[in-house]
Amino acid sequence: MDTHTPMRTEPGGGAGGHDLRHHGDVEVRDDGSALVDLAVNVRADTPPAWLREHVAASLGSLAAYPDGRAARAAVAARHGLPAERVLLTAGAAEAFVLLARALKVRCPVVVHPQFTEPEAALRDAGHTVGRVVLREADGFRLDPAAVPEDADLVVIGNPTNPTSVLHPAAAVTGLARPGRTLVVDEAFMDAVPGEREALAGRTDVPGLVVLRSLTKTWGLAGLRIGYVLAAPETITDLERAQPLWPVSTPALAAAEACVAPRALAEAAHAAHRIAADRAHLVAGLAEFAGAGLRVVEPAEGPFVLVRLPHAIAVRDRLRDLGYAVRRGDTFPGLDGQWLRLAVRDRTTTDAFLRALEQAVTTPA
Amino acid sequence: MDTHTPMRTEPGGGAGGHDLRHHGDVEVRDDGSALVDLAVNVRADTPPAWLREHVAASLGSLAAYPDGRAARAAVAARHGLPAERVLLTAGAAEAFVLLARALKVRCPVVVHPQFTEPEAALRDAGHTVGRVVLREADGFRLDPAAVPEDADLVVIGNPTNPTSVLHPAAAVTGLARPGRTLVVDEAFMDAVPGEREALAGRTDVPGLVVLRSLTKTWGLAGLRIGYVLAAPETITDLERAQPLWPVSTPALAAAEACVAPRALAEAAHAAHRIAADRAHLVAGLAEFAGAGLRVVEPAEGPFVLVRLPHAIAVRDRLRDLGYAVRRGDTFPGLDGQWLRLAVRDRTTTDAFLRALEQAVTTPA
Repeated sequence: MDTHTPMRTEPGGGAGGHDLRHHGDVEVRDDGSALVDLAVNVRADTPPAWLREHVAASLGSLAAYPDGRAARAAVAARHGLPAERVLLTAGAAEAFVLLARALKVRCPVVVHPQFTEPEAALRDAGHTVGRVVLREADGFRLDPAAVPEDADLVVIGNPTNPTSVLHPAAAVTGLARPGRTLVVDEAFMDAVPGEREALAGRTDVPGLVVLRSLTKTWGLAGLRIGYVLAAPETITDLERAQPLWPVSTPALAAAEACVAPRALAEAAHAAHRIAADRAHLVAGLAEFAGAGLRVVEPAEGPFVLVRLPHAIAVRDRLRDLGYAVRRGDTFPGLDGQWLRLAVRDRTTTDAFLRALEQAVTTPA
Repeated sequence: MDTHTPMRTEPGGGAGGHDLRHHGDVEVRDDGSALVDLAVNVRADTPPAWLREHVAASLGSLAAYPDGRAARAAVAARHGLPAERVLLTAGAAEAFVLLARALKVRCPVVVHPQFTEPEAALRDAGHTVGRVVLREADGFRLDPAAVPEDADLVVIGNPTNPTSVLHPAAAVTGLARPGRTLVVDEAFMDAVPGEREALAGRTDVPGLVVLRSLTKTWGLAGLRIGYVLAAPETITDLERAQPLWPVSTPALAAAEACVAPRALAEAAHAAHRIAADRAHLVAGLAEFAGAGLRVVEPAEGPFVLVRLPHAIAVRDRLRDLGYAVRRGDTFPGLDGQWLRLAVRDRTTTDAFLRALEQAVTTPA
């Protein structure tokens, strides 16, 4: 499994045994609510108080229908784009559904391992979805030659969930072709210091569609807000497939606040802290090399992907010890040997590493 | 125009000159924000403070992905239905898009005059939409014989926006047929005392889909929350077409609160007050009979539809006098002679009636 050649499957029917609709939130629901959460990729201690207060202030105007114009203009300004290149959506999840339904596509391809929702949305819209599966042996780095020339929609994450690989911008733009829509999910890009390799704001790449989320960095998963950056014609097509008033007033208030200079500075600061916290986690995980644990490196997102023997049993033991981690086997290209770990502060990480020590040494 | 025979148009191309995407919110935007609003059908002085506080309390858990299970169960219990007959949506607008996209439909028909979003959503999904246009001469009452037998999707509002006509439940269920989906938009039903003629909660009508809104009675237009009641198979089909996490955490909190016994009692009380306020408005409008103004009666919703000479000019004069009313000409089956007026409290209504007096007597 770990040495897949890049390939296209012919799904048509099932999803190759992967539960594309499994997400980290389920791992901390119900009995999991008492667990320390390393399963969900949302920054801890968010939303910050100032943002929560800003959202609360918007509740005074709930009786009016949402008016997204100010938030759209603010997002456009943040990326130096005109407003007609921006579409606000009810989270990135809505954006995937719009892309799957609104664009005329014959031959969509998703680069895996990757967040499964784009493929699930494409399948639900009736598409047969091709897969390019990147290889562990290549560090899950993008091999542009593996993407079929006839693909007219290519979806790739950068940095990629769950591998935490940050592809060079030039490698990603190298996938652009006349007649091809190139969807780059940058949901975690604002957790990368300097947003190196970001394509948001670029207007020189034909067919480029960039998705952004405010959910992870700002702790707004419950609010459903994200946005799409693309050519005006594409935005118009996607917008036509949206319901009226797609984004709620509190979500619009949050979007406007999260792209203000003060918020961008806070996010930039958080990105550097995440990088330091991730280095601490990765250093700690290196101690488990003897137990057969391998980290996919370099990790550039706010999470790391690890391979280790008996990962599923280790995950269960971690739950017993009070820690939720994300199973890897629901991601195409991975299997039961993989776990994804969210980057947390040093104290949480140290306690987690002690639990991991116990979990890997307990006899099965 | 006011004596249309029930008919089906063959739209395919345009919408017969009607701007289906014009809604009341635009009439009070921008320069309209200083106007007294009789254009938007949201109850005044909403959301109530207790509801706003309940929604604000939900902001503490924004970092978690929304979990709609409790709200879904609460809505189901409110209508005496199992949860699998309930789908929460991001407002009724999302429900129309889901219906248009997820159901296998060949021959959809919308009963007009009516809220235009269902037809707009069906057209956007590529359908050719038939129209049954009810006649002023019949008091805009439903003529079941006017609905073509081969229609496999029929959409009707009850009480109907903009006519304020409340169709008898038996007349509506008489439209049910094997192989037909019967969509009844009950967005304003909770403003009808006792919810007479409601079909929500009925499981004995084949193909019945009931839409409900929490927007109008509770002043939650900005929050995007509504729900669909239907057979479990239909709910499953619609749910599959939804994005992941379609309803935000604050909206879920609001939904749960708005179906609690305390809220239902408040809504019932409000429905009786609206009926009294509407009677006051209709009595006042009767004074304009000499000026050629006619009210569609009996009006049973939180708004009334009126026909009057030079309605467009009167609307413009009302704006100059500080009042926003809803133009009627964007509704199929109506034209520039029609205005829709929201029911407001007596003081507001009395002041409005004085302005109307001025507006109809000013020379054009």
